[in-house]
Amino acid sequence: MAAVLDTSRLEAFSDGVLAIIITIMVLELKVPHGTTLAALTPLAPVFASYVLSFVYLGIYWNNHHHMLHVTHAVDGVVLWANLHLLFWLSLVPFVTAWMGENHFAPAPTATYGFVLLMAAVAYELLQRRLILIQGEDSLLARAIGRDWKGTVSPLLYVVAIPAAFISQWIAGALYVTVALIWLVPDRRIERALAAQSG
Amino acid sequence: MAAVLDTSRLEAFSDGVLAIIITIMVLELKVPHGTTLAALTPLAPVFASYVLSFVYLGIYWNNHHHMLHVTHAVDGVVLWANLHLLFWLSLVPFVTAWMGENHFAPAPTATYGFVLLMAAVAYELLQRRLILIQGEDSLLARAIGRDWKGTVSPLLYVVAIPAAFISQWIAGALYVTVALIWLVPDRRIERALAAQSG
Amino acid sequence: MAAVLDTSRLEAFSDGVLAIIITIMVLELKVPHGTTLAALTPLAPVFASYVLSFVYLGIYWNNHHHMLHVTHAVDGVVLWANLHLLFWLSLVPFVTAWMGENHFAPAPTATYGFVLLMAAVAYELLQRRLILIQGEDSLLARAIGRDWKGTVSPLLYVVAIPAAFISQWIAGALYVTVALIWLVPDRRIERALAAQSG
Amino acid sequence: MAAVLDTSRLEAFSDGVLAIIITIMVLELKVPHGTTLAALTPLAPVFASYVLSFVYLGIYWNNHHHMLHVTHAVDGVVLWANLHLLFWLSLVPFVTAWMGENHFAPAPTATYGFVLLMAAVAYELLQRRLILIQGEDSLLARAIGRDWKGTVSPLLYVVAIPAAFISQWIAGALYVTVALIWLVPDRRIERALAAQSG
Repeated sequence: MAAVLDTSRLEAFSDGVLAIIITIMVLELKVPHGTTLAALTPLAPVFASYVLSFVYLGIYWNNHHHMLHVTHAVDGVVLWANLHLLFWLSLVPFVTAWMGENHFAPAPTATYGFVLLMAAVAYELLQRRLILIQGEDSLLARAIGRDWKGTVSPLLYVVAIPAAFISQWIAGALYVTVALIWLVPDRRIERALAAQSG
Repeated sequence: MAAVLDTSRLEAFSDGVLAIIITIMVLELKVPHGTTLAALTPLAPVFASYVLSFVYLGIYWNNHHHMLHVTHAVDGVVLWANLHLLFWLSLVPFVTAWMGENHFAPAPTATYGFVLLMAAVAYELLQRRLILIQGEDSLLARAIGRDWKGTVSPLLYVVAIPAAFISQWIAGALYVTVALIWLVPDRRIERALAAQSG
Repeated sequence: MAAVLDTSRLEAFSDGVLAIIITIMVLELKVPHGTTLAALTPLAPVFASYVLSFVYLGIYWNNHHHMLHVTHAVDGVVLWANLHLLFWLSLVPFVTAWMGENHFAPAPTATYGFVLLMAAVAYELLQRRLILIQGEDSLLARAIGRDWKGTVSPLLYVVAIPAAFISQWIAGALYVTVALIWLVPDRRIERALAAQSG
Repeated sequence: MAAVLDTSRLEAFSDGVLAIIITIMVLELKVPHGTTLAALTPLAPVFASYVLSFVYLGIYWNNHHHMLHVTHAVDGVVLWANLHLLFWLSLVPFVTAWMGENHFAPAPTATYGFVLLMAAVAYELLQRRLILIQGEDSLLARAIGRDWKGTVSPLLYVVAIPAAFISQWIAGALYVTVALIWLVPDRRIERALAAQSG
């Protein structure tokens, strides 16, 4: 198991893909035909789903940034674990548009949660592989620690997906809850870094 | 408050998003059906709004470049302040297309100004956070100084937004004025750098 | 023959193009009109072809990453050999969409294989030029070695292209086989690096 | 005149924009409705114009890469000269599509030449500014030297633009000629580098 590749190109490629995903989502905000402010009203659910997905992708970029910042070597498995994460995130514009254009209808809203769930699983797999390479005593391993956010988020998605068929508002509220949980950047890593240099 | 992340990935990600935003705007320049030069005439307002937005995004990239150039450390709050800025800028292609396709109709022109205003506010918040981290004695703080441009621009937007409903030409002229004010790159930072090394 | 340019901008540009190619493919996943899970069913072939192409582009990025990692200097010919590779890869979204939307019809499926074949040839040309510059004793040359994968893949494409007109499933199975062959990252380079540093 | 900014972010941003321009052009290759190879025939002019523009953008990236490689400092004027170049290049997908979809009709073909001309002028302006900053004795100034290519290319465009209204084949032949002139990478810079290190 040769962990001999550096992280810079992995970060650059991930940044590129995330930047594109986050930006092409806005293409779903179709220019309205009318020229009054009222013409924007039908766009409200599309806009709301755009904001939600923008925040989610921002969270992923943010956490990815923090995680790779304390990673010094990667191997081929990491490259694929990272591509696996990017694959699920690449589906976010699709499910965002489907959910937004259909006013958070049950199936699209559940599918949105499914893609979020798979992305969360992919992130967890990537994180575990990185810890395996860096070692249990590494800065990364200590920074991640118990990782209650990483444990709770998939559980909330698992609740939200069937809940979408009962009421899309429950599912939506759960997605917003997970986003809020993560919105605070991952201070664990910053603290671990500060502790090390302090 | 741990300002321990370096700026390179923040710059790379912002460059990626700005590069994509500036480029996908051109997708709104729909290929005309005719094959004469006259077929380009109806595209004139779309083209004019494209040029204006290209210049605005160029200004943001330029100032962002200068600002980060004298920044040595960022923290999680900066990452989110930066994403907040990118969010408003990501809406520029949408409002540009809406304004251009409708020949600078009042509501789209006002909405364009609103997005510019929010981007200006987001830039100011990002700048303040960076100064807070770098310190009041930092190169950045000294380079920014009084920041009359940063104070005047939002005021001009606030005037332009209601003015669009009276005459879109007033609003348009104000947007062009703000662009011209900023078109000169931020010499303050270059001067501060020259003074330091001189 | 002056091999005096460094590889960083070549990598950055390639990362950018590959990131965009891999991401715009998802735009072909058109949002379905229905709001039931059944509305996703007609998307199955489009989705399957997306997954296949995502994996292929991931393989190219992965191998490109590994190859450039042990390359220290490039020249103008390499820049063009790299652009030639990116050209064929840029056609992947087009043939992916054509194949997926037509449920793997013979001609689109054969054309897909043709583009993969040309990309494989372009990759081989790039690799040879890099080995020529680095020298036969270089880390790259030793890492690549016999390169049975590089020899077998084009042969399988050459079989798959006419086979698509007999049965698209044979062609599809061959494309999946090539992907599986490469899915394991190029351990040769990692081993060569480990041997060197060991 | 403070030439105090480094070139890395300028290169990264330019790479990003060029990568996106080169890639979104392929979106104009609309998936054909038929499923036979014959269905690809109507795409021939679109494909031909795509290849031509891909090569042109490759040339610009290549030369930009070489030019910035021997540049060590940039200033605010350079940032804008570079954005000016990117602006004209950003119009390439638009004119490529207009020309390709209309089988090289006179006006679109002339407009294509006009955009190429403006890009060539913008490149020349950028180059002059860089030489001014680096100095007449700089590696860049010596490498560029007489720059006959830079002189001849705009002249050929100036001939091609009116010629397109007489025969689009003359214009097309001239565009291909300019591309071939530049297709050889800018050995002047590689030679100057080799001479310096030799």
